Parts: sequence; structure tokens; C-alpha cells
Amino acid sequence: MNTNCIVAQSGGPTSAINASLAGVIKAINDSDMYDTVYGSLHGVTGVLNDDFINLTDICKSSDDFLICLSCSPAMFLGSCRYKLPDHEKDNSDYKRIFNTFEKLNIGAFFYIGGNDSMDTAAKLTAYAKIIGSDVRIVGIPKTIDNDLICTDHTPGFGSAAKYIATSILEMAHDTFIYELQSVTIAEIMGRDAGWLTAASALARNKYNDTPQLIYLPEVAFSFENFLRDVREKLRNSNNILIAVSEGIRDKSGEYISCSKSSRDIFGHSQLSGVGKTLEQLIKNEIGIKCRSVELNILQRCASHISSKTDINEAFNLGYSAVKHSEAGNTGFMASICRDSTTPYVAHVEYVDVAEVANKVKSVPRNWISPAGNDVSDELVEYIRPLIQGETETSFENGLPRYTNISHLISHSA
Amino acid sequence: MNTNCIVAQSGGPTSAINASLAGVIKAINDSDMYDTVYGSLHGVTGVLNDDFINLTDICKSSDDFLICLSCSPAMFLGSCRYKLPDHEKDNSDYKRIFNTFEKLNIGAFFYIGGNDSMDTAAKLTAYAKIIGSDVRIVGIPKTIDNDLICTDHTPGFGSAAKYIATSILEMAHDTFIYELQSVTIAEIMGRDAGWLTAASALARNKYNDTPQLIYLPEVAFSFENFLRDVREKLRNSNNILIAVSEGIRDKSGEYISCSKSSRDIFGHSQLSGVGKTLEQLIKNEIGIKCRSVELNILQRCASHISSKTDINEAFNLGYSAVKHSEAGNTGFMASICRDSTTPYVAHVEYVDVAEVANKVKSVPRNWISPAGNDVSDELVEYIRPLIQGETETSFENGLPRYTNISHLISHSA
Repeated sequence: MNTNCIVAQSGGPTSAINASLAGVIKAINDSDMYDTVYGSLHGVTGVLNDDFINLTDICKSSDDFLICLSCSPAMFLGSCRYKLPDHEKDNSDYKRIFNTFEKLNIGAFFYIGGNDSMDTAAKLTAYAKIIGSDVRIVGIPKTIDNDLICTDHTPGFGSAAKYIATSILEMAHDTFIYELQSVTIAEIMGRDAGWLTAASALARNKYNDTPQLIYLPEVAFSFENFLRDVREKLRNSNNILIAVSEGIRDKSGEYISCSKSSRDIFGHSQLSGVGKTLEQLIKNEIGIKCRSVELNILQRCASHISSKTDINEAFNLGYSAVKHSEAGNTGFMASICRDSTTPYVAHVEYVDVAEVANKVKSVPRNWISPAGNDVSDELVEYIRPLIQGETETSFENGLPRYTNISHLISHSA
Repeated sequence: MNTNCIVAQSGGPTSAINASLAGVIKAINDSDMYDTVYGSLHGVTGVLNDDFINLTDICKSSDDFLICLSCSPAMFLGSCRYKLPDHEKDNSDYKRIFNTFEKLNIGAFFYIGGNDSMDTAAKLTAYAKIIGSDVRIVGIPKTIDNDLICTDHTPGFGSAAKYIATSILEMAHDTFIYELQSVTIAEIMGRDAGWLTAASALARNKYNDTPQLIYLPEVAFSFENFLRDVREKLRNSNNILIAVSEGIRDKSGEYISCSKSSRDIFGHSQLSGVGKTLEQLIKNEIGIKCRSVELNILQRCASHISSKTDINEAFNLGYSAVKHSEAGNTGFMASICRDSTTPYVAHVEYVDVAEVANKVKSVPRNWISPAGNDVSDELVEYIRPLIQGETETSFENGLPRYTNISHLISHSA
């Protein structure tokens, strides 16, 4: 007997997470084993609250829904930051989820997200085993941070990297127009890993050597060394552009930022102000023109400049994950394995989702310069294939045409 | 006897100022009256310092130079913020400039910039008249701020407006994914005029009503009214997005920003922190999740999302300005006159450059809602034609291919 599926999205937005959703839907549409695919709104909380939309019906009513969805930012299904409790302490959520699975005749649950979402998938897999449920639990990775283990890289990273490198190149053009000496600081996302900040180095070309300095969270940050680095670069260049991760910390592990008070429910510190802190430092200590630019949330949602490689891989991971579940597999995450960088070749693999949860992949120390103020050529060449290609954003009345998300907006009223 | 030309760029960057430069160069290449076109580096200071590049030669050596130039951000020739002194007090700059004009057999000087640059053009025109020089002095407008008078709008504004509306739409997608109540504040450029901030309203579509609140510098800002507006909007929407101009002031004329200490050499206040100020206010007074996003310099240099209408108009203004000077005219600025909004039709006119200098065109009060927290449909329809069309950015290795600006970088060492 055929079964139905549920798909959900969780964590922070990326430009590619809807492409994975489109891949999941397409594979289920193509499947002989699965019938209807339900979208759970706001991650796993939609399953807990019986809050679904019928994605099979939406596909039937719109010819280009999946194409438009693949190129739309953030989560079509909404997100959540809900963490399942340990089932040994409180199994009420688990009971409700598996009751809903039974009620809707669910054969597979697909969860697209980062390592917090993989934690949920791992917990559901373990619980399914205990109760003898044959619902397949599948993780599909996404995070702009690129910090998941067991995958060469994560969907969403390539598009964010393309946005960052493009923005740094454009800021370089903006920076070099004045004869006045100046420093520009670009603050880039990445709480624990410097992959996104490293992507700034892709902006370098035959005429542009910015960013001349790059600081990642993997190396302890020192104000003294920073000022020494800036002073040294100012000897040879009038205009310095510096890329700095929001997550840089001093040698005692304290974040270099103005405000570090609040924490979100996963215990992550809410960061802001690294760029402004360093801007003020340079103004005070060196006394020259300095500005800081926080790339902020646009680096994760600027779908108009997505990487085609990234979007295609995200779609393919979603599609492949469904196919792999059809063969009876559960408790896995679809991951990307790189076969070759030049030319770039990769294939999909499947890893134990419990291996991925709650771990972080940092930039290896040998991919960072000995002084901790730049990245290696190997790191740049690792990222470069991931930003290749442009998606064909369709425009309507001067603006990108994205998928209608009124179901999220009316839900939130 | 044929003469040569000098062209220069000044003020702040836009995505369209190089398209006007390309238009000037193309018209001179096509001219029977003008021979070589020299680019003065760093605005009028290049003329003072004999710092030129030969643009005619560069065109000859590269087939697609003008095409690539038209789509490249900021100033190919660099910029300056140099203000000419009153010639009655000190005419040394003027003597040097007109000596250089004579030495290089200059028939026309084209200055592409905002109202500070039009001040320079007006002063040179007046001085030329006094000394009986027949060098034609021509202003070509640009400014993302759209605050020049005597023109329907300014080149650069449409591209910045397109970037802003696109970014607001993408931020809306990023905003509506969570069920948690939140406020997002977008801080947009515009020191004295709210045109750019008003462009955020173009992001509204059939599913998106953000930004729900818009504050321009033309209306005195009140913290009390602001908090009342936000609280009222939160009654109907979970997620509020607010567009606010960097230049908003209270009724006594004080900027609403954290730091307002330094001033640039034209006496403009250096602004920062309006968004952060309001973010903190909402956190303190309403106590919900709030974030602020400063669109910062990317709104003026993100050429990868330029408006084709804007780029074409900018090119056309540069081209037309050269043609008009060939007919013996001087002391004018090429300007855009709108014939019709639906369909959008405009033509080039020529106005006295002295009329334009040092004046500011604000958003009319009747194009702002009575409560001062939104813009009118008329204002939206005024802007809409200016963001239409996409330029065909060419990409190389995953990034936009922009004009090589190594002449600016080596100059600044």
C-alpha cells in the first residue's frame, strides 16, 4: 500500500532550502510508492499542531510552482527553533508526532535543516526504532554556515558565498574611489565557523587585492595583532577592506562584540557589533576614516544572486533523499561527496543522521594563514566551484518573482 | 579646429555614474568636433594635479570597454569631495584649471555628479565667462538620493531603488518564517530626502504588505508616535518590517541617531545608528524580538541588480550632454523630463547648472501619509518605472565582471 510523506524546514533561512524542498516534492510526485506530500508549517511544530498544507495539490494547481520555489528565499514552509525533549524524560511530543504519522498514513518524514534539525531527525529515528515504527526519517542538510560534518559542504553555503564575494567586490569598487586613507570592515555571519568569512577572498582578482585582511573565529583574536596588521597594510595601500566573522573571540573565548548579553534557546549567543567595535578601535587608535558594513540577513536571503551550482545541488539532495528512502532506508542524511575540485565533480552519499547532529565543522587551521589574518589558496579553491553559475531569476515589474508565502503571513496574524 | 574634452566624476558612488561616463565617451568617439577624451582622476582635483588617463586610447584597446563600464559600480575615474573656493577670494585653482584646459586644447569639460559637483560646474562656468574662455562647462547629474532639482529624477536613483525594494522583499521572506513576534528595521540612505526610503514601498505585492511603516526625513519624527504606530501594527501582524531613513530628525531638527558628532567637509553630518537606536527603543519599550539592518553602501554599488531603465537613461544623458555642447552650449546640466508615467516616456532637457547647485528636492508632503508613517500611491507610481528592466551583468568565474580599476588602486598607494 502506498503511503504519504511529510516535509518540513527548520533553522535559519538560506537561498537554497526551498530548492531542496522542490527536490523532495518533485521526487514524491515522480514516485510509485508515495502519494500525497504534506508540508508541515514551522518545522516539526506543524506536526505537533496539525498544521499542514497539501503540497501535492499546490503543484497540481500551478505549472511553474517548483521552478519558482527553487529560486525563492527563506522557508516556504516557515521555520521553528523547537528542540524535542529527551524522550526518556518526556515522550509526549513523540507520541503526538507518531500518532499524526499514523493518522495521515505517513511513510516518510523529511526534515531540511542544520545541525539542530539533524538532532530532531536523530531523536525521531531512535524513537521510531523503540516503538517499532517503519516511518522513514530523513535529514536533508542546509546552512549558510557550512559547518555540518559528514558532507563536503552544505546547500545554502554556495549562494551565501556568492553574495558575500560579490558584495565585497562591489564594496572594493566603492572603496577605491577616494584618495583619502580609509578602512572598511565587512562583518560576515558565522558564529562558530569561518567558512562564510573566508568566501570574501573570492572577490580578489587581477586588479583587486581586497579583503587584505580576513579574521575567522577559528583563531583567537587579539586587538594588538589586529592593529599591527592594519597599520602594516596601510603602509602599502590607501584603502583597506577587512573581512571579519561575527564570531571572532579573544584567547579566553569571549566574543569581540559590543553586546553579548542575550542567548537564543539553543544556547547560542546573539551577536552584534563586531564590526562597530573594530571601527571604533581603528578611529580611536589609528585615527583615520573607518566604516563598518554588516552584511546581515541579506547574505542568507538574497536569492536574486544565488549560485546555480548550489541551487542544483540542493534540489538534487532533496530528490535523492526521497529515492533513498524508497529503498527502505531511514535515519540518514543525504550528503555531498566531492570527487574532484578541478573539474568540480560531486555525488550524493547517505550518512547516519545521528553522526551529524550537534557537531560543528570548523575551518582547518592549515587553511588559515600562520598569522591568523588570511586564508590559504586551498580554502579559496575549495569554495570557488560552489559559487559558479547564475540562476535565471524571473522578474516581474522590476522585482524578482518569488513564491507567494501568504499562508505564512495569515498564519502569523 | 577640433578640440579635446575632459570628463570627471565626483560625489558618492552610484551604479549608474559609469553609464553616464560611457555615454560621454561614446558621443565623443562619434563626434566630428571633439578628438581625444581625457579622464580626470578624482574629480576636479585631477585637473588641478594633471592626473589624467586617455579614455580614447583605452576604448581603442578594448572592444567591450564601454559595455562593461556601463554596468560597473562606483566611479571608474575615482571621486573627490573637493569644493572650489570662491574665485573672488582665491582664483589660483581657477587659473590652474583653465591653464590646463588651454594646454590640452580642451573644448569641453563634463562633470558627472550631485549638487556639490553642480556647484563646481556653475563656478567654472561663471569664471569662464569672466575670462572670456569658450571652454564649454557641462554638468551631468547623478545621485542615488534623487534630491537634485530641475530634473524629474537622477541617474543612480532607479538602481538604488531597485536594490532597496528587492532587499526589502527578500527580508520580508526572511521575516515571515517564524511564529515569534518580531520587528525588523531597515535603515536606508537619504540624508535630507526620503526618496530612497520611499522606494521600499515597491516591495509590496499581493502577498507582502511590508514595510508596514515608512519614515522619511521630510516629517518630524516622534518616538511616542513611532511606538504607538508599532504597537498598533503588531495587533494585526506578527512580523513588522519598518523602513526608516538615516536622516530622520525630531521636531527640533536633531538627528535620531546614536552618533552625530563628525561632519564631512561639505558640512553634512555623518550619520549612523538610526536603526540601532530604534531597535533598542523597541526592545526596551515593547520588549519583543527586534533587529535592524543597515543597507549601507551596498545600496549604491550593487551593480549586479541595476535597473536597465536607469542605466540606459544615465548613458543617454551623458551622450546627449556632449551633443548639446557641440552646438555651442555651456553652463548647462542635462536633465530628465518625464512626459508620461503610464506608459513611461521621458526626454532629455538642458537646464542652467547654477540653478541646480546646492539645492535639495524633498519628497512633497502630500506624497507622504497624513500621519507621516507611510507614502502615497502617487509616490510609488512615480518610482515604479525607474526600477524596470535588468542589465545583463556578465559573470566570470561566478562573480560579476566589472571594469578593471587598477589605475585607482596604484594611484592610491
